[in-house]
Amino acid sequence: MPDKPLILVTNDDGITAPGLRALIAIMNTIGDVVVVAPDNPQSGMGHAITVNNVLHCNPITIDDGPQLEYTCSGTPADCVKMAVSEILNKKPDLCVSGINHGSNSSINVIYSGTMSAAVEAGIEGIPAIGFSLLDYKWHADFKQAAEFVKNITLNAILNGIPEGVVLNVNIPKIKKEEIKGIKICRQANGIWKESFDKRISPLGKEYYWLSGEFVNKDKGQDTDIYALENGYISVVPVQFDMTAHHMIQKLNAWQM
Amino acid sequence: MPDKPLILVTNDDGITAPGLRALIAIMNTIGDVVVVAPDNPQSGMGHAITVNNVLHCNPITIDDGPQLEYTCSGTPADCVKMAVSEILNKKPDLCVSGINHGSNSSINVIYSGTMSAAVEAGIEGIPAIGFSLLDYKWHADFKQAAEFVKNITLNAILNGIPEGVVLNVNIPKIKKEEIKGIKICRQANGIWKESFDKRISPLGKEYYWLSGEFVNKDKGQDTDIYALENGYISVVPVQFDMTAHHMIQKLNAWQM
Repeated sequence: MPDKPLILVTNDDGITAPGLRALIAIMNTIGDVVVVAPDNPQSGMGHAITVNNVLHCNPITIDDGPQLEYTCSGTPADCVKMAVSEILNKKPDLCVSGINHGSNSSINVIYSGTMSAAVEAGIEGIPAIGFSLLDYKWHADFKQAAEFVKNITLNAILNGIPEGVVLNVNIPKIKKEEIKGIKICRQANGIWKESFDKRISPLGKEYYWLSGEFVNKDKGQDTDIYALENGYISVVPVQFDMTAHHMIQKLNAWQM
Repeated sequence: MPDKPLILVTNDDGITAPGLRALIAIMNTIGDVVVVAPDNPQSGMGHAITVNNVLHCNPITIDDGPQLEYTCSGTPADCVKMAVSEILNKKPDLCVSGINHGSNSSINVIYSGTMSAAVEAGIEGIPAIGFSLLDYKWHADFKQAAEFVKNITLNAILNGIPEGVVLNVNIPKIKKEEIKGIKICRQANGIWKESFDKRISPLGKEYYWLSGEFVNKDKGQDTDIYALENGYISVVPVQFDMTAHHMIQKLNAWQM
């Protein structure tokens, strides 16, 4: 990797999100930064891409930092595609996504716009990391996470992230000095037990808000949830080959 | 599983799509069918869920079949959540999604609304299968796929799909009698080499359409793409634990 890597920064909370602004500031100390981020919140967008509508993409200046910035009307995955195909004239050396306002541990990796951007970069052969802070507040204290985000990023640059893998980093909502360290983990086997909040519109029509409660069925001490609950930053290596390789032999026994 | 299983049917092309109508007809010969499908096309929606907007869900009658049907304003994953939480009074015995108009082989599994519905069902502990026909036409000939869809579904009911796995079935666009059989495969390591088609709106503003070309980098004969190109139906077991377990030891060697 070059001394001053080209770093693509994106997120799912949108270009003005404090978590993104904090991530840009950190990356400005490491490399040349180009930001391509959604022009509106894209939480929960999973790995959606825009195939049935057009996209808009425009340069923008938000603060006086050295980074170049663009907004994109699409999803986080669209932002990465747009950056690689239309904005950058070479493949970035690294893509970082976040810092997300809220957890992307366990099964949330599959619903997460933050992680979908990192995964899209990974699919395109770009080393990628998604960062999330376990604090949903818009003005969460991202400063406390800065040192760890920089440390993990420098380690990824130094060691290299193997092809086919991206990193999912979650940071607990505790004081910097209380963080016990960084744990490499597997994704906990938890799910959302959803419910819908049924309401009535002013015109008398029923509508629903998706709601729900996260249930962790996984008692393992090697999971991201366990690490986070015990004061550690979790790092889960995430792959986008979704094949359940261990099932292939079993399915071959079916009489089809 | 009961003699007459309760089958949840959904898709990403919307409730009126001929592929969905064909799948409903097949499932009506196997069990009691409840359809909860998007009220508008949701292709490429990946595993998106609706967290920033409200959802509408309404009963509807499209044809004179015995199934119960509902439209939902959300994504395919929303449809499954809505069905399980609000519409059905028990967990369905099976969820089938599709038949998609077009391929969901290789990396497309991660962008696919069809597969995200199946994966969401899998996350909720419901045996699930996504079906796709390699024909993008609205009036593709789904009849030729019917026998195979039924065969695979009955096999899944008979043998059981283990927890944590869903099936991704792709059917080649060739005559029924030319199909050589069913192959259990891994997801091919192919990607979309995207490009954007830049256009100018009537008001003079630039906009983009996502475009691109699929490139299969994978020469393996055990992949879904190889099977489909050689006249076989591909069945890929898909998992939603995205942990790259083989990387955990390697990452532990990093000095963080």
